[in-house]
Amino acid sequence: MPAKEVSIAIIGAGGVGKCFLSQLSSLAVRRPSPKINLCYIATSRKALYNDDYSPIAVDGAIDALASSTKSPLDLPKAIEYFAAAPTKVVLVDNTSSQDVAEAYPLALSRGVSIVTPNKKAFSGSYKLWQDIFSAAESSGAKVYHESSVGAGLPVISTLKDLVDTGDKVTKIEGVFSGTMSFLFNSFAPLEGQGGQWSSEVKKAKELGYTEPDPRDDLNGLDVARKLTILARLAGLPVESPTSFPVQSLIPKQLESCSSGDEFLQKLPEFDSEMEQTKASAEKSGKVVRFVGSIDVASKQVKVGLEMFDRSHPIAALKGSDNIISFYTERYGSNPLIVQGAGAGGDVTAMGVTADLIKVLSQIS
Amino acid sequence: MPAKEVSIAIIGAGGVGKCFLSQLSSLAVRRPSPKINLCYIATSRKALYNDDYSPIAVDGAIDALASSTKSPLDLPKAIEYFAAAPTKVVLVDNTSSQDVAEAYPLALSRGVSIVTPNKKAFSGSYKLWQDIFSAAESSGAKVYHESSVGAGLPVISTLKDLVDTGDKVTKIEGVFSGTMSFLFNSFAPLEGQGGQWSSEVKKAKELGYTEPDPRDDLNGLDVARKLTILARLAGLPVESPTSFPVQSLIPKQLESCSSGDEFLQKLPEFDSEMEQTKASAEKSGKVVRFVGSIDVASKQVKVGLEMFDRSHPIAALKGSDNIISFYTERYGSNPLIVQGAGAGGDVTAMGVTADLIKVLSQIS
Repeated sequence: MPAKEVSIAIIGAGGVGKCFLSQLSSLAVRRPSPKINLCYIATSRKALYNDDYSPIAVDGAIDALASSTKSPLDLPKAIEYFAAAPTKVVLVDNTSSQDVAEAYPLALSRGVSIVTPNKKAFSGSYKLWQDIFSAAESSGAKVYHESSVGAGLPVISTLKDLVDTGDKVTKIEGVFSGTMSFLFNSFAPLEGQGGQWSSEVKKAKELGYTEPDPRDDLNGLDVARKLTILARLAGLPVESPTSFPVQSLIPKQLESCSSGDEFLQKLPEFDSEMEQTKASAEKSGKVVRFVGSIDVASKQVKVGLEMFDRSHPIAALKGSDNIISFYTERYGSNPLIVQGAGAGGDVTAMGVTADLIKVLSQIS
Repeated sequence: MPAKEVSIAIIGAGGVGKCFLSQLSSLAVRRPSPKINLCYIATSRKALYNDDYSPIAVDGAIDALASSTKSPLDLPKAIEYFAAAPTKVVLVDNTSSQDVAEAYPLALSRGVSIVTPNKKAFSGSYKLWQDIFSAAESSGAKVYHESSVGAGLPVISTLKDLVDTGDKVTKIEGVFSGTMSFLFNSFAPLEGQGGQWSSEVKKAKELGYTEPDPRDDLNGLDVARKLTILARLAGLPVESPTSFPVQSLIPKQLESCSSGDEFLQKLPEFDSEMEQTKASAEKSGKVVRFVGSIDVASKQVKVGLEMFDRSHPIAALKGSDNIISFYTERYGSNPLIVQGAGAGGDVTAMGVTADLIKVLSQIS
């Protein structure tokens, strides 16, 4: 007999967390079974939960949380609380916290399933990765993380399906950062001249497409994290996101700037370098893009600038879209391609909600 | 306690069926749990099964089937046999049979789950569609059919995730036929002149890209069936694949040809018509493609020739690839795009195997 009630616990109530709550609220209306009880919601400073697990109203949870006087439980305590619930519990981690990520093996080993967009758990040390999946394996708890790469785009699920059905993935290549996509589509567009590098970076920041300090995008680490996740799913035991070549677009001399603003102010001095890269691509009829690639056979993972023919799908990308191409034995010379917005609260939350539905269908 | 054994029954042992068996064989090696017992395999003329449900070896099943002296069970009898099995049963329908499709409601109501690439069940009458999903709903049996559109490409699963998480799909547009893709990518390519229409059709047939009688591709019905499925998943109660405008590329005068060969022989007489269409697209800087589209708001579904800017992803398609664009409220002006091979035994079987894995994770 399937369980008719499942509890969910949410950590994180920022941009993605708010969008997720709104999707959760309408999910409960559309899919009455299993009944979903919200048993815990917390930020890093506050929490909302009842000792007897009586459910918290999803609508209005954000406001109630803001006026709550309870502190969040320590992670081991929180996991104890989830594990002792009268129903199965799914932990929805909507943070990007390393600490929460490191608690996944404990949660999973106690039978708590996890859905999350948090990249840290899957792109940290290879040991953490192994601990997470072996804990899930032995307890039967589920762990889904579609939104850790490409937000709601079907990237992780597609790669898993390819691997699980026995296809041989030979290469994965793509634009994995909305920020980098926007920057290069404006700096080196297919049509027209494009702006100066430093002004495009400034514009991207103004439009909210970059982190508060744009260097957190330009260092390539975000892309390296996503590549680490995909490479591991494709079977490569990548040690960490710093264990393969990652090209940073931060000029050496600006690494030590004390703020993002100082960085942006000095960046124009280095425009000629990027201008040269663009010109040399143009000379050979190509455009430059910031991509990540995984060559499975040679076990090479790398992140950085590459040149593409103007007719290549990566060159034709628009706005801040991501594109991910899977080259496999079955698909032959034309890859399986997934493309679209790879960032934003709503589409990230969508990946989380879709994962939650998949977990519910398995544990209830 | 999860079930440790599940039985599967296979109907159909053609191109897709053979590829599926090979994937099933390696799946059993990679994923030992749940144990999968093949309890029945049949074509339209022969069958292999044991009254006591003792498992049939997957390796060599095709040869054993060929030398079997048993006839297939009538569908109601077969379903009775599945429903009485000591384990849960998944029926894998690798046929394109209308008869098998019509037996789905009975199978599902008896608790037999179904995975299939068979379009007929989901693109036939709207009543059959309703019967299938209400039978599944009430018994708890699962029905998955990823490969009914775009073979193994994540099309159905992506659309379901969008709908299930509460996104509002506004439009779906794409090239849904590998044959049509190949024909138009060669007849009206982005680069170069392209061949004559009738010679491209002949070439496609020689390369095995068309049905034995190419009119079965050119009438647009295959695309109309796929559109019917997607439209229904997006919430439109489309009555049948003939209840909306479908443009046939068979000249009226050639509809009555007695054979595909006669049709191919006479087709050159009608080349000027297609040549005109191509020229008029070129005049406005566009290319012509055979597409299907669903406008959800206005409830308009249609299949036929349309013109696209040369920079449009549909114009840039290669080989016999499919492309499917989902326009939704969350994704805004840039659609979520899935692209790649949408036909072929291996990639079609991949969709079936991936579906089987999803069903196993829910019923075992």
